[in-house]
Amino acid sequence: MTDIFKERKTVEQVEESSELAPKFDENGLMPVVTTDANTGDVLMMGYQNEEALKKTIETGEAHYWSRSRKCLWHKGATSGLIQKVKDIRIDDDQDSIWLKVELKGLEASCHVGYKSCFYRSIPVGNIKQDIELKFKEDEKTFDPNEVYGDAPNPTKL
Amino acid sequence: MTDIFKERKTVEQVEESSELAPKFDENGLMPVVTTDANTGDVLMMGYQNEEALKKTIETGEAHYWSRSRKCLWHKGATSGLIQKVKDIRIDDDQDSIWLKVELKGLEASCHVGYKSCFYRSIPVGNIKQDIELKFKEDEKTFDPNEVYGDAPNPTKL
Repeated sequence: MTDIFKERKTVEQVEESSELAPKFDENGLMPVVTTDANTGDVLMMGYQNEEALKKTIETGEAHYWSRSRKCLWHKGATSGLIQKVKDIRIDDDQDSIWLKVELKGLEASCHVGYKSCFYRSIPVGNIKQDIELKFKEDEKTFDPNEVYGDAPNPTKL
Repeated sequence: MTDIFKERKTVEQVEESSELAPKFDENGLMPVVTTDANTGDVLMMGYQNEEALKKTIETGEAHYWSRSRKCLWHKGATSGLIQKVKDIRIDDDQDSIWLKVELKGLEASCHVGYKSCFYRSIPVGNIKQDIELKFKEDEKTFDPNEVYGDAPNPTKL
């Protein structure tokens, strides 16, 4: 694979040019937000390292770096919940990515079974009393036990 | 301010309950994606520490942690580009936030002058030749020199 990333030389180059010069953090990662290309909903927040970004550009299917499994993660390889990439955006200082995707299969992206990982809302306003999250999806789209079997849960305490 | 965050005890509590038990990373931060509540477009990616999340919940205006300035950042305090929060979502493992906001003033969120920080697209497909980013906004919404004056540019190489 040729190196497709440019060296970062100036602020103007990074912000105003058409050169792809991404910046990965001290762990070699950048945050990636993924939205449903049809509804605009945010589906998930993930991370990419250099290889995951290259694979996403090359294949048109979303790849991430799994921080819990510490490996390249072709989304859907286990679950079938493949994300077809319709657009890849990079931000002003080129240290984060926005993927617009179409969902295949179960039309879901969340390992808990919901369509979006962001299925709960924090009420705005009074912080003097206990905050209760509100569920924004009425029911799960799939049964995670059927899809993932006994694969370890990626959520860490 | 009372402590509004619960201790993280079990995966089930974190994923399936209505308790707010957020997880900040080793730097005390979590990534935050901000979308335009009207258009669904992703405007920016930022970070929140505990205080920024609390302030956002309490005031209904977006607060972030500025990694370049190393301080609490009330978005719009300098530029006037206030973000009125319509919805705060938290993800399955409670380590990232999605803010849906309405823009006031210039209807822009990007310090370079564009409406969205994600004003450039990476073409999907051939990585054998040089990648050219494509600009997706025709022109800037405002002149950053007029809005920010000689404030230091937050973009780091």
